[in-house]
Parts: sequence; C-alpha cells; structure tokens
Amino acid sequence: MIKLYDLAGADENRRFSPYCWRIRMSLAHKGLAVDCLPWRFTEKEKIKFSGQERVPVLVDGENTVSDSWQIAKYLETEYADAPSLKLENGEVLFIKFWTETILHPELLKFTLLDIHDSLTEKDKQYFRESREKRFGKTLEEVVKGREERLPDFQKMLTPLRLTLKKQQFVAGNSPGFSDYIVFGAFQWARCISDFSLLQTEDPICEWREKMLGLYNSLAGEAVGYSV
Amino acid sequence: MIKLYDLAGADENRRFSPYCWRIRMSLAHKGLAVDCLPWRFTEKEKIKFSGQERVPVLVDGENTVSDSWQIAKYLETEYADAPSLKLENGEVLFIKFWTETILHPELLKFTLLDIHDSLTEKDKQYFRESREKRFGKTLEEVVKGREERLPDFQKMLTPLRLTLKKQQFVAGNSPGFSDYIVFGAFQWARCISDFSLLQTEDPICEWREKMLGLYNSLAGEAVGYSV
Repeated sequence: MIKLYDLAGADENRRFSPYCWRIRMSLAHKGLAVDCLPWRFTEKEKIKFSGQERVPVLVDGENTVSDSWQIAKYLETEYADAPSLKLENGEVLFIKFWTETILHPELLKFTLLDIHDSLTEKDKQYFRESREKRFGKTLEEVVKGREERLPDFQKMLTPLRLTLKKQQFVAGNSPGFSDYIVFGAFQWARCISDFSLLQTEDPICEWREKMLGLYNSLAGEAVGYSV
Repeated sequence: MIKLYDLAGADENRRFSPYCWRIRMSLAHKGLAVDCLPWRFTEKEKIKFSGQERVPVLVDGENTVSDSWQIAKYLETEYADAPSLKLENGEVLFIKFWTETILHPELLKFTLLDIHDSLTEKDKQYFRESREKRFGKTLEEVVKGREERLPDFQKMLTPLRLTLKKQQFVAGNSPGFSDYIVFGAFQWARCISDFSLLQTEDPICEWREKMLGLYNSLAGEAVGYSV
C-alpha cells in the first residue's frame, strides 16, 4: 500500500498539514488506499531517505516522492487511468501560488498559537523557536487581535467567493487539484483551531462543507473542530 | 465581418478597455477578423440594441453578445474548431475575479487621471463625475502618491509572478482566455498611461512582451506608451 508521511500533533490522529491534506484528498480522488504515518516536525531523520526534510513524503513501492506538487504530478502520471486531478490546467499553478503566498500567511496569523498548543512537547519547542525567529515576534504577538483582522481576511477571499458563487468547485463542475490546494488551507485551520474563519452563509463555507463530505467524509471525520 | 464596439479615447485609435482587449486577443486567437468600432462612454444610445450600456459588444451576423465572459463563451461554442480559449478550465473564473477585484482596482488608482486626460471633452465630464462619485474623492486625489504605492502593487502580483516564472503562460504552455484577462489589465494601463508598472527583469514583464508580440503584434502596435 502507498505510504504517506503526514504531519501529526501530540494526538497522533490530529493531522493538520495543508500540503499533506492536498495529497490525502488527491489519493482519495484517484481511488488509492494509503497508510498515513504520523510524523512530527522534529523527526527529520525519519524522512531523510527522501533527500529533504518536509512532509508530505509519498512512498509507492520503489518510488519516493516529496513536495506536494511533485506528488500530484506523480499520481497524475502513474495513475493516469484514474480520475484526473486536472493538473494540465495551467491556471492551477496560479491557485497554488495565491494559496501559498496570500492565503497561508494570513491563516497562520490566526492559527499559529493553536498549532503550537497541539504539538508534542519536543515539537512545541522547535516550533516556537523557528516560528518566532521567522516572524520576529512571539507566537502570542502574531495572533493577537485576530478577531479584528477577520473582516480583512474575508475580503481577501473575494476572488474565491465569487468563483464558488458561480460554480460548484474551483476546478469547475467537479473537484480538481486546485480545490484540494485551497481546501488544504482551510482544513489545516479546522484541524488545529477552534477559531471560526467563515460565516455559514458564505459560498466558501458551503463549498468547504462539500469538500468535507467527499470520499466518505474523509476530511469531515478527521480530528479537528466543527468551525 | 464580426463587429466589436470598442472603447476609444479622443484619439479614436486609442483603444483601452481591459474587457475589450480580452476579446480582441481572443478573436485573434481564434483567427477571426474583426472591425473594431470606436465607442465612447457617453454613446450609450449607440449600443442600446445590445440591451445594456457597456462595451465590449460583439455583433456576429444575427448574433449580438455583450459582457466579455459571455462573448468568450460564445466564441468558444460558435468557433469550436478554432484553437480553444481553454474556458473549460474552471480555474479561469478565479483568474477573472482576481483580476477584476484585486488587479483592476489597484491599476485604476494609478491610471484614473490618465484615462480622464485621454478622453473626448464630453467623456471627460462624464468620467470625472461618475468616478469621483464612486471613489468619493477627486481623480487627482485618487492617483496622488502613486510612486509610493508601486512596491505594494508589485508585491500583490506575487502569485502571477511565481506562475510566470514556472511556465510560459497563465494557461500553461500556450495562451488561453486567462492570459487575455490578465493581459487586458496591463494593456489597459499601457494604452492610456506612461506610468511604468513593471521592472524589466520581472517575469511578468517578459510575459507581457510575449503577449504584445502575439498575432503580428496586435497589442504591441496599438496606440499606447512604451512602458
């Protein structure tokens, strides 16, 4: 069976990496079973065989692939007969970079402390040190005043909201990797934080509900918060 | 021959609507000849037959279509054998809304006064009144300090820049409607303003050069500024 090294919290069933969620959804999309192995930030040694230090790492028989984009391309090529992730749509790359450079940084400013609080003791120390260095402030300072930042965050989502008002999925009438990229971001937040990001009547919220229900509620039944 | 009502300045050869440029590029993409009729903001009567008051309006034999998105869909269906605009990629809709709600408003804050200055006297009055009402300030106040806003503007383009660093076009290896949507925004600015938006070494600038050269330099040879 395919194996996926998947970021976990102190509770080994709490899986919250946005990049790993992209791949878990993609594997389900392709109808592929997977064994998701819990991995912690400080277990660099455990995935050293992949030649780098981050998850997701996918092991499929003889093949080891890291980086969620490379893994998606691998799945698309290797399992070409299974439903397409629609990676051939060039615009997916824009969605990826919008998510990673606009959406993720804003989400982090809401969830950074909640992420910390969900980690093992060893990971907590690593996470605090590395993230406080990156942000140049304490985790507490980063998330401070998050309620006040919510309106700007929701405004920033306007292109996504208008898209989902017009069509079922980011990729059109059926989900594609672009949906899993954006959903991964929201699922990251949902698995780690009880801070509510979306209003119920928001089309993005409706879409997220649909995504949570896909593949026998794969994402909906994951350990997380009902927000 | 297909006719397109196309926004023009005091110089009737200055054509600067971002929505019209989408369609001019799309028509060229499809290999279709077109007669681009100059139209001014205050000539609502002239396009009344289309049932609304904005350009582009496309007239193809018996068919009249307005709204650039509807026109693109019309061309894709009616001229299905000509090269595809790749409208079936669901993500194009996200590109459209990102362009219209993020990129266009920022561009306007650079070019609003230059647009005004390029119009006929009658249009100038209409434009100043309607836009000052919309912005709640004078045109001069809107564009004031634009040099200082340039770094933020260029930062806002990060997802586009990273995409074009990785692939030739927004739509992938060949241009699609998503490219014409984004290019329309830059061509709007270029046709109306000598304010330089992009640095030469920016991948977005390289892509714009490619776009300007397409279809015998259709856009590159249009009346505008070399910025």
